[in-house]
Amino acid sequence: MELVQMNKQQLSAFKDGAQAQYDDFKALGLKLDMSRGKPCTEQLDLSFEMLDCLNDKEDFICSNGLDCRNYGMLDGIPEAKELFAPMIGVNTDEIIIFGNSSLNSMFWTVQTAYTHGILGEKPWKDYDSVKFLCPVPGYDRHFKVTEFFGIEMINIPMTESGPDMDMIEKLVSEDETVKGIWCVPQYSNPDGISYSDETVKRFAGLKPKAKDFRIFWDNAYCIHHLTDNPKYILNILDEAKKLGNEDIVYIYGSTSKITFPGAGVAVMGASKRNIDSLKEFLGISIISYDKLNQLRHVKYFGDFNGMLSHMNSHKAILAPKFDAVIEMLDKEIAPLGIGSWVKPDGGYFISFNSLNGCAKRIVQLCKEAGVVLTGAGATFPYGKDPDDRNIRLAPTYPTIDELKKAMELFVICVKLASAEKLLAE
Amino acid sequence: MELVQMNKQQLSAFKDGAQAQYDDFKALGLKLDMSRGKPCTEQLDLSFEMLDCLNDKEDFICSNGLDCRNYGMLDGIPEAKELFAPMIGVNTDEIIIFGNSSLNSMFWTVQTAYTHGILGEKPWKDYDSVKFLCPVPGYDRHFKVTEFFGIEMINIPMTESGPDMDMIEKLVSEDETVKGIWCVPQYSNPDGISYSDETVKRFAGLKPKAKDFRIFWDNAYCIHHLTDNPKYILNILDEAKKLGNEDIVYIYGSTSKITFPGAGVAVMGASKRNIDSLKEFLGISIISYDKLNQLRHVKYFGDFNGMLSHMNSHKAILAPKFDAVIEMLDKEIAPLGIGSWVKPDGGYFISFNSLNGCAKRIVQLCKEAGVVLTGAGATFPYGKDPDDRNIRLAPTYPTIDELKKAMELFVICVKLASAEKLLAE
Repeated sequence: MELVQMNKQQLSAFKDGAQAQYDDFKALGLKLDMSRGKPCTEQLDLSFEMLDCLNDKEDFICSNGLDCRNYGMLDGIPEAKELFAPMIGVNTDEIIIFGNSSLNSMFWTVQTAYTHGILGEKPWKDYDSVKFLCPVPGYDRHFKVTEFFGIEMINIPMTESGPDMDMIEKLVSEDETVKGIWCVPQYSNPDGISYSDETVKRFAGLKPKAKDFRIFWDNAYCIHHLTDNPKYILNILDEAKKLGNEDIVYIYGSTSKITFPGAGVAVMGASKRNIDSLKEFLGISIISYDKLNQLRHVKYFGDFNGMLSHMNSHKAILAPKFDAVIEMLDKEIAPLGIGSWVKPDGGYFISFNSLNGCAKRIVQLCKEAGVVLTGAGATFPYGKDPDDRNIRLAPTYPTIDELKKAMELFVICVKLASAEKLLAE
Repeated sequence: MELVQMNKQQLSAFKDGAQAQYDDFKALGLKLDMSRGKPCTEQLDLSFEMLDCLNDKEDFICSNGLDCRNYGMLDGIPEAKELFAPMIGVNTDEIIIFGNSSLNSMFWTVQTAYTHGILGEKPWKDYDSVKFLCPVPGYDRHFKVTEFFGIEMINIPMTESGPDMDMIEKLVSEDETVKGIWCVPQYSNPDGISYSDETVKRFAGLKPKAKDFRIFWDNAYCIHHLTDNPKYILNILDEAKKLGNEDIVYIYGSTSKITFPGAGVAVMGASKRNIDSLKEFLGISIISYDKLNQLRHVKYFGDFNGMLSHMNSHKAILAPKFDAVIEMLDKEIAPLGIGSWVKPDGGYFISFNSLNGCAKRIVQLCKEAGVVLTGAGATFPYGKDPDDRNIRLAPTYPTIDELKKAMELFVICVKLASAEKLLAE
């Protein structure tokens, strides 16, 4: 029976049952963290040998004859460009190999646009206000970057094929101060939605009023599949090139969740025109990124296929964890009609939508019983979920036993909060 | 006989002699690069074993219990703070461990001051113009950073005890738009001058009109000695604390010339108040820097003394190169009175001052005969040496034989350019 169909008495009994279960859980004194998309120890162990692959003094000379251990090669070693260009779907002259953080390269790109402008256009700091479109729910760290630079953020609803393209097309074509959009196109954070071919084509064909409008295409989970026959999204740069619109997109990726968070390699792809201009700015701020870590990745993976097979090992660890979460939701929540979710085919999250007005309460209940979730609201600009319903579940870090325990608690909290809410109406 | 004492005929004969030697050299088809302060291959080989020291899976847990391979620890692992705090003379709560580039951390600090201000003061972007003081000759990449943000640069002459402090004290106390100064206090780039105790004390005691004035204290060569009994400069943060003025300085350092350029670790030290504020900004732009590379440094060096003894190996390689340059200048140029220089006790450069108006010509002559030097003017803001006389010699990268060859050419070019100049007067 769905909760909304219950009468007050039934609801009250249901709530008392949930409360009793919750109190029992609280007594267990759990201490689990499901707040961030962190790889687990088993995943970190997968890349252990990469740390030990620079053991030959002859190894340090790149294909261009330069020594990776010395200054130079601002945009990365040639071998790293070869390795990573197919990962983000660009040519080797359309890529910059950055340091250890794609977030940092996104921050830097926004910062240069803010202080110096894009391809000769007016710097964003010189506007009274500029705006970014933010498909929601989305990634909190994206939103923090634009908030930091005082950029106004506009929520764009997600559909199962990607963000609402009608709304996006309308906004970018009408308003010259709309300068960008944050996208996680494959296995979106947190919904796990992959943009449909039509969505990618419509993005590639956007005709913004602002010449310096850019799609910030954070393809963080481009090869982070949870199924055996993954479907890749369309290549947005290829699509944009077909339309002569190739300057519209900045593509980002990293190996943070392939090798090591914090000790991986971040990359950015874009039209040659964009890349050449950004490299001029980049050369002011740094001489080169860590080319020895680039070389480690090259030696360890060999080529892009090496990365793909490495990802199968991640999948083997992660797929059962996602299954455990989905099973629990299917079994305990679905029949009650008090939440919705989609089983993702990849990525790092499961996006749970509660009844409106319950997310904060669920997160609070979990916390008080020892399970830390991503803060309710974090998936929206300014931390404000207008419906207070979205909760990002991050199943990767805990062990499967911890995860099952945490999910047992989670569903109890959903039940309790939902009953409280319905009783108060 | 000094060149200025020669009559026209003597000068002309001298010039013809130099020209003949130059033509012979040109015929050799040399191809040498002395343009940048790059370590040589032998130096890079010194730290080879650091690349192979993460070979135990138990090694990755820090003293705080966290796994270095995962997200977190924005400001660095505790062990790296312990290792590097003594290098730049701060406490472990007064340090941020950055990525691979101190230039990048300096750029970032200037950028945050520009976009968001320092400790609540008005962002520099909101002034019509702000100014930086630039001791000259200085480091070209410092000047490029401030130029990038449209900051007006004012030349401050160097003396043998450091920059002209009378001029600095006057400017900072009178003008609220003077916001910073670039300093390389130990073995300055390029002069190799170490600031005297009095100079450091006067810096520590500056009373700027601008609350957000900062000394950018780039201690790049803090342990890069060329002598057996090095004299360290005074600790500026300690001196500033004595005067309750500890917010005035940002200190930078890195292992770029200790382990690997581009694969080292950069650090920044400052008062806890400055550091805490900067960390809030930093957390927007990155989750953490490469903690595995921090751990490599910790495991390889053990402690700060380990770094100091490692520097002795660098000294053994570099001291003979510096000696070779100085010997050649002493022998070939000193008697002619057509140049001046100081033998540095550390650092990466020898600063050569020609007769006024000759530097560009000397660099051009060298280039045409196959030896690339740092561009004349590069050691001044906007690339403009008002006297056209300073040339930065970088003796570290070539082999000693190449270096001797290059210096043979260099002194010929100095002679030729000087004679040309005097004949034209």
